[in-house]
Amino acid sequence: MKSSKRETKRHLWPSVAPPLLTIDGIGTRPPGCWKMLTVAVCMAFLACLQAQELQGHVSIILLGATGDLAKKYLWQGLFQLYLDEVGKGYSFSFHGAALTSTKQGQELIAKVLESLSCPEDMEPGRCAELKGQFQRLSQYRHLKTNEDYMALSKDIEAQLQHEGLREAGRIFYFSVPPFAYADIARSINSSCRPGPGAWLRVVLEKPFGHDYVSAQQLATELGSFFQEEEMYRVDHYLGKQAVAQILPFRDQNRKALDGLWNRHHVERVEIIMKETVDAEGRTSFYEEYGVIRDVLQNHLTEVLTLVAMELPYNISSSKAVLQHKLQAFQALRGLQKGSAVLGQYQAYSRQVRREQQKPDSFYSLTPTFAGILVHVDNLRWEGVPFILMSGKALDERVGYIRILFRNQAYCAQNEKRWVVDQSQCLPRQIIFYIGHGELGSPAVLVSRNLFRPSLPSKSWKEVEGRPGLHLFGRPISDYYAYSPVREQDAYSVLISHIFHGRKDSFITTENLLASWVFWTPLLDSLAHEVPRLYPGGAENGYLLDFEFSGAQLRFCQQQLEQLVPGPGSAPMPSNFQVLTAKYRESPLISAWPEELISKLADDIEATAVRAVRRFGEFHLALSGGSSPVPLLEQLATGHFGFPWAQTHLWLVDERCVPLWDPESNFQGLQAHLLRYIRVPYYNIHPMPVHLHQRLCAEEDQGAQMYASEISALVTNSSFDLVLLGMGTDGHTASLFPQSPAGLDGTQPVVLTRSPYKPHQRMSLSLPLINRARKVAVLVMGRVKREITMLVSRAGHEPKKWPISGVLPSSGQLVWYMDYEAFLG
Amino acid sequence: MKSSKRETKRHLWPSVAPPLLTIDGIGTRPPGCWKMLTVAVCMAFLACLQAQELQGHVSIILLGATGDLAKKYLWQGLFQLYLDEVGKGYSFSFHGAALTSTKQGQELIAKVLESLSCPEDMEPGRCAELKGQFQRLSQYRHLKTNEDYMALSKDIEAQLQHEGLREAGRIFYFSVPPFAYADIARSINSSCRPGPGAWLRVVLEKPFGHDYVSAQQLATELGSFFQEEEMYRVDHYLGKQAVAQILPFRDQNRKALDGLWNRHHVERVEIIMKETVDAEGRTSFYEEYGVIRDVLQNHLTEVLTLVAMELPYNISSSKAVLQHKLQAFQALRGLQKGSAVLGQYQAYSRQVRREQQKPDSFYSLTPTFAGILVHVDNLRWEGVPFILMSGKALDERVGYIRILFRNQAYCAQNEKRWVVDQSQCLPRQIIFYIGHGELGSPAVLVSRNLFRPSLPSKSWKEVEGRPGLHLFGRPISDYYAYSPVREQDAYSVLISHIFHGRKDSFITTENLLASWVFWTPLLDSLAHEVPRLYPGGAENGYLLDFEFSGAQLRFCQQQLEQLVPGPGSAPMPSNFQVLTAKYRESPLISAWPEELISKLADDIEATAVRAVRRFGEFHLALSGGSSPVPLLEQLATGHFGFPWAQTHLWLVDERCVPLWDPESNFQGLQAHLLRYIRVPYYNIHPMPVHLHQRLCAEEDQGAQMYASEISALVTNSSFDLVLLGMGTDGHTASLFPQSPAGLDGTQPVVLTRSPYKPHQRMSLSLPLINRARKVAVLVMGRVKREITMLVSRAGHEPKKWPISGVLPSSGQLVWYMDYEAFLG
Repeated sequence: MKSSKRETKRHLWPSVAPPLLTIDGIGTRPPGCWKMLTVAVCMAFLACLQAQELQGHVSIILLGATGDLAKKYLWQGLFQLYLDEVGKGYSFSFHGAALTSTKQGQELIAKVLESLSCPEDMEPGRCAELKGQFQRLSQYRHLKTNEDYMALSKDIEAQLQHEGLREAGRIFYFSVPPFAYADIARSINSSCRPGPGAWLRVVLEKPFGHDYVSAQQLATELGSFFQEEEMYRVDHYLGKQAVAQILPFRDQNRKALDGLWNRHHVERVEIIMKETVDAEGRTSFYEEYGVIRDVLQNHLTEVLTLVAMELPYNISSSKAVLQHKLQAFQALRGLQKGSAVLGQYQAYSRQVRREQQKPDSFYSLTPTFAGILVHVDNLRWEGVPFILMSGKALDERVGYIRILFRNQAYCAQNEKRWVVDQSQCLPRQIIFYIGHGELGSPAVLVSRNLFRPSLPSKSWKEVEGRPGLHLFGRPISDYYAYSPVREQDAYSVLISHIFHGRKDSFITTENLLASWVFWTPLLDSLAHEVPRLYPGGAENGYLLDFEFSGAQLRFCQQQLEQLVPGPGSAPMPSNFQVLTAKYRESPLISAWPEELISKLADDIEATAVRAVRRFGEFHLALSGGSSPVPLLEQLATGHFGFPWAQTHLWLVDERCVPLWDPESNFQGLQAHLLRYIRVPYYNIHPMPVHLHQRLCAEEDQGAQMYASEISALVTNSSFDLVLLGMGTDGHTASLFPQSPAGLDGTQPVVLTRSPYKPHQRMSLSLPLINRARKVAVLVMGRVKREITMLVSRAGHEPKKWPISGVLPSSGQLVWYMDYEAFLG
Repeated sequence: MKSSKRETKRHLWPSVAPPLLTIDGIGTRPPGCWKMLTVAVCMAFLACLQAQELQGHVSIILLGATGDLAKKYLWQGLFQLYLDEVGKGYSFSFHGAALTSTKQGQELIAKVLESLSCPEDMEPGRCAELKGQFQRLSQYRHLKTNEDYMALSKDIEAQLQHEGLREAGRIFYFSVPPFAYADIARSINSSCRPGPGAWLRVVLEKPFGHDYVSAQQLATELGSFFQEEEMYRVDHYLGKQAVAQILPFRDQNRKALDGLWNRHHVERVEIIMKETVDAEGRTSFYEEYGVIRDVLQNHLTEVLTLVAMELPYNISSSKAVLQHKLQAFQALRGLQKGSAVLGQYQAYSRQVRREQQKPDSFYSLTPTFAGILVHVDNLRWEGVPFILMSGKALDERVGYIRILFRNQAYCAQNEKRWVVDQSQCLPRQIIFYIGHGELGSPAVLVSRNLFRPSLPSKSWKEVEGRPGLHLFGRPISDYYAYSPVREQDAYSVLISHIFHGRKDSFITTENLLASWVFWTPLLDSLAHEVPRLYPGGAENGYLLDFEFSGAQLRFCQQQLEQLVPGPGSAPMPSNFQVLTAKYRESPLISAWPEELISKLADDIEATAVRAVRRFGEFHLALSGGSSPVPLLEQLATGHFGFPWAQTHLWLVDERCVPLWDPESNFQGLQAHLLRYIRVPYYNIHPMPVHLHQRLCAEEDQGAQMYASEISALVTNSSFDLVLLGMGTDGHTASLFPQSPAGLDGTQPVVLTRSPYKPHQRMSLSLPLINRARKVAVLVMGRVKREITMLVSRAGHEPKKWPISGVLPSSGQLVWYMDYEAFLG
């Protein structure tokens, strides 16, 4: 009985020995025990046969089977799958589907099937035989209406019944434009799902949306037809051999990498895909997407997560890998306009005009080149720059991931005596070379002064000598260099992974949306950015080199653009740009916003340094609100001499919300100042608005507590500097015209009521403010113009305009106003 | 009258035109107006004559005038001073003093004076003439007793009176061993001070003590004879032309350097002095000092402060420079044993044995090579490694200061197309080349892709082409390279600075003591360290290369030494090394200390990750004391996946001292954990032991406040993890056998009394601890052996042994004990 079954299904499930056991002629015999094998092997083989019984039949439907992608990669990938899997327990049928008529389709498919190739090391006769089998298992199918799908399903079922096969599953590969997804998905779901107990896998090709909203829409739509585990979104980069090797490499070299794979040792990570071709002929697609959506949002981001993620204990667990990947997304610091530099090759706009019949006046803003600086905000990667770069019309075609380690050695000998495998002072790097470039093939390179890596010797071999070849600053002989034993196309790799249900090589919905959450704000903020034009090829010179300073990226060569000041490179305000005058009989300093902030920061530092020199400490009371934000950041990152360790930070006022509430003034201080500097914990004095689990309750005496804390720590309750703002209603601190509290009286700290939400506030009182040695009032923006005028004419009328009551009894008052606030 | 006066003092104050106006034969004429000069110049010259009248006479007494240093450098320096200053308003006399008899001394001095040389560009006749003048102004003097000094003083006064000169000042140059300082100083102070209105300057040569205590003693002794402003301590490195150029270079290139000279841009600073010679013939001195005291504590430290200090607004203000230098000292992070690597050339011990008649069994521990890693803990330099290195018997003689900038660029073109003056991806560095080495002369080098530096064109010129010369990884043509127009010996420079009162080129007492404060603890901790032996010269190979990881330094090649784990490279505890058992019916984990800490840290992280995954937050209560210190540091620097942002930190117990007191448990948390990680301010919960400016007053209800804070934030008041210790008396948390509070009852947080100081404590109670989901007890060290045994046998006896009351009602208890505590 068994034997006859095997006979009947020979055309579906041909007898193929595992590659190592291939024997001439065996393919034509029914599977059984070969004479020269021992009984033990026979037993194993029988077990294997039983497994085959269990695995069942897989139908693979390639939608868009006559399209470019299918012709170029997918049929070959399916054939490779067949070669790899045949004889391991599954039977297969392949359905090439398209909208073409059956006859025309059959002809097209026949042509494609004829062109399939076997691996180089396969004997030609064997190749011809297997190709023949594959051709017999493959057929063309016109697939358009719901009925077509029903018919397909029926045919599969009939075949299963006829052959006495159990159905294992169906794979639908969507090699069609995204607009066709919904109809196909609906038809599959309603009319072509496999029978009970068998799996369905649908394979989707990018683009998966244009931004977060469209990606989510598409995901929701697909989600109404398929379960998450049924969908396999392809990013073919994950099938590139060097990319697919990242996690296994990290896993197999855990011991060497464990101490190295972190911010203490990694200087930078470069994730690069350079193309020489341009977008000519594809501008109608490209114009809508641009380089970030085309390459960075998907390919380079996937690679980024593979490098940055915490390594799961078991990397063969798809679930663990996907979960760790998502965690890596969560650690990515949000991108801002300043995180990117954009370029466009000069011919691009002309090509778009020509291909899309645009008028001569049309100029595209679509970037064809982008450099992006990404930071991963966790303890492993904090501060390590991840540089993502891709572009068209560049000087070479190459893709790589380069992890450069910091040089943390000092070599006591003269550099002439350094030799690569011993000197720790020569560069140390690991490169996953995706392909092309000067090396011409995928590779994994590890500097010889780093460690000798472990790679699976079956699939990776050491690169043969390539004298004269220099890569990443060093001769190739400086690296342990490995390349694949057999180069595999990405689609072949991925089709195999689909077949084996290895979801970690695909983009889950969560993963996709996380990526769009990351990229969409940047794309939005760059929408109207003018890219730098570049001539293309080697002509680009240094035009596209870029550099970072803090989180800011900029082109190295400044052309017409304004220089963006990074941390520590704040422009020095020249006196020429700063106006000094009088306002309400006190000194007024006025300037453009940047110079004003710069001047105020300088003045605060000078005051702090003086105070620390005289008294050993500096007591600074800060207001909340948005005006001080650039000031705080300037102080945090541009003032290296600031005596933070001796500075006490106090709040001028606080909203009655918990300290961790985004509305809290303290939270602003935390976000824009405290996270950058080192003030001892006990020198930070948030207002006690939240006591006994309630907010600003009179009976909790928070105001009195703050007052006594001040009186205990601040000599004479005189702050060295109080920074105030001024509201459009003339309020300052949280002292409002409508509320009498704190304008006079003996209470140093008071609870007040604001006309704005949240209404409850705590504030220093005017009498306490006026005890300060120095008070600075910062007023910025055109919106303040009117109140600035009104207050300039007002007398001492604190009940009308609380700000007018600010007049230090023996200290100094200085007004800092930008030109817009002061001159309108 | 004026004219005759000028005539009479011609031998003291010879007529010399300023160098630019030198005319043959003019030296023999009385000063006056040269015919070819215009009236204007004559007027200027007359003004100058009047100035001369005002400046007065300077007597320079060189003590130890026949010694090596004097013969080699000091006489030449004095002659150079004479050449530079003569004709600018001062008259001079030079007294070479020593203990030799007058006759012999005179002969010796005459010989030295004969060997003096003029600058290369001086015309020989003119040289001979000036040398003759200098010889006539110089005389030998036997100077030993107090009477000798009195006699010298009288002679100077007589000469002044005879010549009708005003006394400007006296310089005493101590070129004598330190043991002679006190007597000489006493004699000068009592018997040889200049007259009223004239200054005294005493010049001292190192060593200035052997450590902080001896340096302070010496300083106190000298301070009893001289005012601070009278003392000039020489560090001849400050006279090296490249070193002396550091501040002027920073000043003249402020604009380019302002944004660069900080941690955002500097990758590392190397301060290096390599020698090829060894200590042979000098071992009696060297054996007492070693390389750190001989070179690093003084020369390299001075250079370090010049690089690291905030640049004063006006660098010609000695006061400002010295003050900023002191501030730089204050920012230096304390050195620890791990901050240094030490070496000794192999022949050294043999040389010491021979030169000092030591037995064959004698081996010296004196280092002849040291590499030190210094961190400057301020916002400008935080995290930038300053590498100081010096050694004898190395492969080359060279000294330099190298500032290497971080590569913060990505270059879009293939590296083959990079050209030095444009590519930001090639190394960028500034080097102050002190001398010798392959360049052979002092120089300032600035990478061409950095900026074109501004140097004083009178004294520095561009280096001529030196094809083939490579320095610091790049051909010399990659640098803007400058060398001095005229090479000057350091002593000539310094003698000129002494004469001009430029105290910033010398070591003030404060400066000296600050340096010893910095170095002494390291020297003490290294006193018994065995240096690595090295063969000497090029044979050293990679033996002396060293690398850093965090603040730890180690040799790159590990020999017999144990590998010191740096941050992120904690050794993985193998299960083999960790013993699991039972203790008091709960799980016990025992291991050697390092593995134990590693295991506990892993377990805490795993608990944290699980808690955050389930509840979104993790509540961790930590004990104070010394045992947790390595644990905290391990968690802070080696656990990249720790969810700190979601972690709440609570205290198990606290001493009733202010939070900033070094005794405070919270302070330990700050120093060993909080400073490294990012926990939001409001997730940190110190115990409120300090309320209303008093400590642990019952009526302030601090314990109740903490309890209600816990109950508000921690679900069910069950901490996710409580970390406890165990005292030798069986106490845990701050629950002591002698004090009943907190052992039972309903109060979750209690005030208790410790038998140890400070007696007052606040502590979580046993009932609260026992609500935890998990309790870990960490017990380490042989001192705990006895209590470990006692408690192992005890029942539930919390009044006798509070630790025995720890038994979570529904949570888990795990004991972590090192082998010494557990097995004794």
